Amino acid sequence: MKKMTDHFSVSECTKEILAISDTMELLSGKWKIQIIGNLLYLGTMRFMELKRSLGAIGAKKLSNDLHELEINQLVTRTVKNTKPITVEYEATPYAQTLKPLINEISNWGKMHRKTITQNQKA
Amino acid sequence: MKKMTDHFSVSECTKEILAISDTMELLSGKWKIQIIGNLLYLGTMRFMELKRSLGAIGAKKLSNDLHELEINQLVTRTVKNTKPITVEYEATPYAQTLKPLINEISNWGKMHRKTITQNQKA
Repeated sequence: MKKMTDHFSVSECTKEILAISDTMELLSGKWKIQIIGNLLYLGTMRFMELKRSLGAIGAKKLSNDLHELEINQLVTRTVKNTKPITVEYEATPYAQTLKPLINEISNWGKMHRKTITQNQKA
Repeated sequence: MKKMTDHFSVSECTKEILAISDTMELLSGKWKIQIIGNLLYLGTMRFMELKRSLGAIGAKKLSNDLHELEINQLVTRTVKNTKPITVEYEATPYAQTLKPLINEISNWGKMHRKTITQNQKA
């Protein structure tokens, strides 16, 4: 801990840790970032369209994750009065604030895959 | 899915999903980003120093996460020939590439806490 005071005061450091912990608690897990990413970049989708776009996710997991994202005001769920009834999911305007983070996650993933592949060849 | 072709080709889209999935598989969970963040910003630490700096993490969880991060070349573990023997953990130069991502995670966490707090007041 000796180097903490070189860069951060203790209260600044606590704030950083809290902020990282907030984000990771909300968005961690394999799927949530991908769910929001797909809704942001591919647009509004029905449940089964969204499920197909994500690949290997189970229906129960997707349903639970969507519910948590709804509570956190990142996704809206709209029941449409069609026959049969359809349910659509959409990223909220607030979810747009996650775009820079999603881009960083995607960029780092591409770079990391390249690095690991090069190391295996070497 | 109808809007996919407006922005991405199918193969571009698959690449994006793969990249996000790679990063989230490696870094998701509540602690890994915080472990790397603390080693990057606070410097080299012994196991117990690192544990204290993180707060509520258990020793077994920390040990497992450090091992995974070591395998992925983000952390090095050095056994020092002192009496008693000490074990130090350090972020690798490669881990520096995570700084923009960690900053985005921290910034979003701060903004989100502010938003949620304001909504509760309103």
